[in-house]
Amino acid sequence: MMKKIIWLGVFTLVNMVVFAQEHPSIMLTKKKIGELRKGIERYPVMASSYKTILKSAEKAVARQPMVSAPVDDGGGATHEQHKRNYQDMLACGIVYQVSGEKKYAQYVRDVLLQYAAVYNQWPRHPKRKEDPGGKMFWQNLNDCVWMVYTIQGYDCVYDFLSKEERKKIETDLFEPVVNELAVVNGAIFNKIHNHGTWSVAAVGMAGLVCNRSEWVEMALKGSSKDGKAGFLAQLDQLFSPDGYYSEGPYYQRYALLPFVLFAKAIHQYRPGQKIFDYRNGLLKKAVDVSLQCTYTNKVFFPLNDAMKDKTYETEELVYAVDIAYADMNAGDHLLDIAAQQGRVLISDAGLEVAKAIAEGKTVPFEYRPVWISDGAQGTEGGLGILRSGKQQDQTCVVFEAASQGMGHGHFDRLNMLLYDNNTEVFSDYGAARFLNIETKSGGRYTTENNTWAKQSIAHNTLVVDETSHFEGKLKKAEAAAPELLFFEANERFQVVSAREKNAYKGVEMTRTLVLFTPEGAAGPLVIDVFLANASGTHSYDLPFWYQGHVTYTSFPLNTHTNALHPLGKDHGYQHIWLNATGKPGAANGVFTFLQDKKFYTTSFLSDTATTVKLVTAGANDPDFNIRNEKGFIISKKGIGNQLFIQLTEPHGKTNPVAESITGAKPGVSKIAVEKKTPEETVFSFFYKKEKYTVTIQYNNKTSFISIK
Amino acid sequence: MMKKIIWLGVFTLVNMVVFAQEHPSIMLTKKKIGELRKGIERYPVMASSYKTILKSAEKAVARQPMVSAPVDDGGGATHEQHKRNYQDMLACGIVYQVSGEKKYAQYVRDVLLQYAAVYNQWPRHPKRKEDPGGKMFWQNLNDCVWMVYTIQGYDCVYDFLSKEERKKIETDLFEPVVNELAVVNGAIFNKIHNHGTWSVAAVGMAGLVCNRSEWVEMALKGSSKDGKAGFLAQLDQLFSPDGYYSEGPYYQRYALLPFVLFAKAIHQYRPGQKIFDYRNGLLKKAVDVSLQCTYTNKVFFPLNDAMKDKTYETEELVYAVDIAYADMNAGDHLLDIAAQQGRVLISDAGLEVAKAIAEGKTVPFEYRPVWISDGAQGTEGGLGILRSGKQQDQTCVVFEAASQGMGHGHFDRLNMLLYDNNTEVFSDYGAARFLNIETKSGGRYTTENNTWAKQSIAHNTLVVDETSHFEGKLKKAEAAAPELLFFEANERFQVVSAREKNAYKGVEMTRTLVLFTPEGAAGPLVIDVFLANASGTHSYDLPFWYQGHVTYTSFPLNTHTNALHPLGKDHGYQHIWLNATGKPGAANGVFTFLQDKKFYTTSFLSDTATTVKLVTAGANDPDFNIRNEKGFIISKKGIGNQLFIQLTEPHGKTNPVAESITGAKPGVSKIAVEKKTPEETVFSFFYKKEKYTVTIQYNNKTSFISIK
Repeated sequence: MMKKIIWLGVFTLVNMVVFAQEHPSIMLTKKKIGELRKGIERYPVMASSYKTILKSAEKAVARQPMVSAPVDDGGGATHEQHKRNYQDMLACGIVYQVSGEKKYAQYVRDVLLQYAAVYNQWPRHPKRKEDPGGKMFWQNLNDCVWMVYTIQGYDCVYDFLSKEERKKIETDLFEPVVNELAVVNGAIFNKIHNHGTWSVAAVGMAGLVCNRSEWVEMALKGSSKDGKAGFLAQLDQLFSPDGYYSEGPYYQRYALLPFVLFAKAIHQYRPGQKIFDYRNGLLKKAVDVSLQCTYTNKVFFPLNDAMKDKTYETEELVYAVDIAYADMNAGDHLLDIAAQQGRVLISDAGLEVAKAIAEGKTVPFEYRPVWISDGAQGTEGGLGILRSGKQQDQTCVVFEAASQGMGHGHFDRLNMLLYDNNTEVFSDYGAARFLNIETKSGGRYTTENNTWAKQSIAHNTLVVDETSHFEGKLKKAEAAAPELLFFEANERFQVVSAREKNAYKGVEMTRTLVLFTPEGAAGPLVIDVFLANASGTHSYDLPFWYQGHVTYTSFPLNTHTNALHPLGKDHGYQHIWLNATGKPGAANGVFTFLQDKKFYTTSFLSDTATTVKLVTAGANDPDFNIRNEKGFIISKKGIGNQLFIQLTEPHGKTNPVAESITGAKPGVSKIAVEKKTPEETVFSFFYKKEKYTVTIQYNNKTSFISIK
Repeated sequence: MMKKIIWLGVFTLVNMVVFAQEHPSIMLTKKKIGELRKGIERYPVMASSYKTILKSAEKAVARQPMVSAPVDDGGGATHEQHKRNYQDMLACGIVYQVSGEKKYAQYVRDVLLQYAAVYNQWPRHPKRKEDPGGKMFWQNLNDCVWMVYTIQGYDCVYDFLSKEERKKIETDLFEPVVNELAVVNGAIFNKIHNHGTWSVAAVGMAGLVCNRSEWVEMALKGSSKDGKAGFLAQLDQLFSPDGYYSEGPYYQRYALLPFVLFAKAIHQYRPGQKIFDYRNGLLKKAVDVSLQCTYTNKVFFPLNDAMKDKTYETEELVYAVDIAYADMNAGDHLLDIAAQQGRVLISDAGLEVAKAIAEGKTVPFEYRPVWISDGAQGTEGGLGILRSGKQQDQTCVVFEAASQGMGHGHFDRLNMLLYDNNTEVFSDYGAARFLNIETKSGGRYTTENNTWAKQSIAHNTLVVDETSHFEGKLKKAEAAAPELLFFEANERFQVVSAREKNAYKGVEMTRTLVLFTPEGAAGPLVIDVFLANASGTHSYDLPFWYQGHVTYTSFPLNTHTNALHPLGKDHGYQHIWLNATGKPGAANGVFTFLQDKKFYTTSFLSDTATTVKLVTAGANDPDFNIRNEKGFIISKKGIGNQLFIQLTEPHGKTNPVAESITGAKPGVSKIAVEKKTPEETVFSFFYKKEKYTVTIQYNNKTSFISIK
């Protein structure tokens, strides 16, 4: 045993030395450059990807390098310039490697030398919002990103540069940048957070390329090198054993790039570290989770602070997919995603992907119903995803039962999203932010992100006493997570159920979501059972934020036609205009809307205490930062346990070109409760002429649910 | 001369006899059926088009024919059943002709005999909204459409039926239907209106197929056969010499089908009539105008009562394009449209189109800047269309300076629409209607169509004293039309200018729209000069209804954060929520919004009397019938002549996937008036660093405008 370890150590050391002397060695390697050149000639996606990079590189060398003193906010001129610079340096580095044309290497050299000449004279960034803040950009994060790209460009031209040039660049630029990241902004560097990952990736990759093992050690184990911080600690703590990143899909995507890229660099320079095997192949799981957290419209589930138009075509996922396919053996169904991305990295990994696509190995991406645990130990709730239908015809339910997800987390325990017909149906607002648009709060999160987007009422989940979960307090929310009660996906139905005991004092919330296709139905129903166990009297609001236009309610509406007022004063209620109220009475309530030429009807349990409110987001929004989205809120005031049952069904179609319409009427009727205790819910409903009875036994781990 | 006429008469008579004995003879002819069958094997678009029809026909013969007594509103079960019946009869007729399989002919026969057995027992339609109303459908119009389709199906199976069956069908069904259309609803039959066209087409085509020259004469010349009504009078009066249909593009599309189809039937049965040459080839012009009244998103300009999602993929345009290509020599650029439609008619005309596409004759559709006159004499204003850029990169300005357009007309004189980036930018609301959605006013126009959609403030045009043009009175509006001052499209710019003297007592409105691309600009500017000549003091509102989200105003906003109230009490103002007001002051005002990842900025002349209002449609809308669209209104109160100048430019791009942004700042600045008289407007502006001076001389017919 002892012998083996020693042998391994020697092997690693040898490898380190060998690799450390050869440039480039990260995404693009000296060894494979010949094959790569042939691949560009041979494989269409490789050819077009290279063409794009070549075009950027040609544009870059055609203009004078510009390295201006930093002045602007996100989206502003100097911000965009420094961003373009690192993109151009990488593009030119790649093109130099592929074409061998010196002008591209010269460009990278010139830009780097310009930076080296002025970097140390720059003060801290004038638009920084925090101290110490960034130097080249308003926030340190962008400085880290700059380094992650730049160091790859440097790696590509390393052999082209003279020893003196390398010395100047490393001494006058990379060393102070590393100091800026690891020391001046050391708090971020040592943070267990995606900003920390960008920071350690930047410093670690610089260390590998520049052969500074000191930087690499710091990057892996934190600046104290004790393992309490750094890349390995981040891998341990930021992901669940299933590969879920606690900030949610949008940030998982963002964090993924430095994770897989730094891992790839470690894999190249220090293969003995077996970084892709770390934590049972965690990074492969993380890439898979990231893709499972998308819908057929390619967009990531917009949980927490998410920009809603972010798709898996994003650069981060191009890196993740290519590396996962080539280096982690993640399967041919990733080629489907790569094909949709329409590009590959000009790199060893990209070459393998392009080759496999050209060889016809692509199979459809495998969307699957899944429970993804959250928390470093996998014990802090998680995300439930139910899916019916394979690709474009897919109905998908997302159940947010994960932990808070740090500062970008929303107060949205047991939130439910519904997708159908290739689009959002019940939606999450995402973040209140106009990314990079300088005239909108400098492109940063607007104040309404806190006062509206994060609040519970902005989500499709229960709000008690007009107060957000955990009173909207981050620390309280971080201290607790929901508990998974049950998850199952069988041929007949898929179900996920979770409980949140801590969001409200004295109110325990349990939500069960089922995707079930009755016989003869064109698509599945979403069965939504929300149980609130409480002792005192409370008011309950269960909102559904929908896309589309209301076409029917089963109850008369008292519409506020001549004046609109906010629904409340705080916890997001101040941002909601109340448009109308209705009383469904003792019958079921029915609410139908039309979206993208398809109808959606929610039929719900109702009694004389039930009020339905039709609302629009956008009150108390002086700068027009909120999108005016629509919701209906099922509201009730009552004592003791409250049971909410909603059955939502997609149905029918309109064809405005042919002026035809089919299936305009929903199939569900007569929802009736047969038993309700804290341990058990039994209810029946009709789908067309067929009666179904649903039994949920919350404490029965083996036979949790039956539908008869 | 006399001789010639006699000879022509004989020729016509001979032709009539020959054709009248041969079935089918309209779209599909006995003569060509062999070629057609080969075409289905040979040409992909023909094959797929036939497959669609075959599928419908197969579905139809697989179920029992259903001819239920009419009960329901538009969109309801019996409405859809009778609609499906005529579609199925036509599909089965075609498939019978192509395949020779008797079951399809039997299906048509069975359905027709069922109708013949019960039609005369039906009372008037129970859901009719007017008297006499329809019989099979809630409105007579649909009964006419039923006949137009059914008679084609009958034509296809004519030779299959026994003489007795034909007699039963003609006597017990077609005769009473013709009576229903031409006598019971004779007022519609004799109306110069698209409903009238459907009615005469139905009766006329029945006459041609059943060899009842009486019906044909009535259809051509009205029920009194004096030429004061009927098809020829409709051709004379409903279209301008340029081929514009006075109700506007949406109804032009709708009317086009009976026009071209009945014309085609006349052409087949009575070629001597030379119907396609009538009025200098009017129908060919009408098809061209119809296509010119679309944008690259395929959608018809939604002027007047228009459903906004209607594209040229609609069935009417498939008929129009196929017949125009095959029988009117309308040019290979129509093949581009046919290819986008993705189908052709299974007919002689469709065969020619499919063949030409297969032979690679397709060239891009020729969008062109054009002035299209309105009015039977071409003297009642018209529509101005300016276009810069060829296909998907096209910027398009639509100037509504046409006559009222009858009952479906809106009070929108000098309205301006802007399209760019393949989408609407400054939009027209279209109609307030949920077509075929029974739960929304039975699928008919909602009351808000009159109180909101038709009113002037719902359009991008000037409103004086919070009163709609012509006080919103149809008769007054029909009595006057705008006057074209100038139209020119040259290499440097395109301009259209028109004057409306009668919309307001004492206020003469002149609007001039220019598409002009400054040197170095990525795209064109829209220069918009709106002159109001008046004596007394008036209040002016010039709204711009935009899609997208406001990202910048050059002036502070006083936003109504805590309560919304309607902007006014009448003329559509009661339907507008006032969100915010701002005072740009003596500088130019600047308003920027982001739409579909592109910025749009309107820079406008302003003084201390100018107020800008940010608004949302939807107040006083108890049933949620109004889409909550956004506008900004440039408002001013003043005495004497008022000059509004707006320069709107598309600029920049955001890429949310790559998180990049370019060109976020507009190029226009410093709009300054140098001369303003009722005869002349001179003003300057800067585009980036370049100064431009625009001179408009309203009475100068040769040198109307200069830009220096």
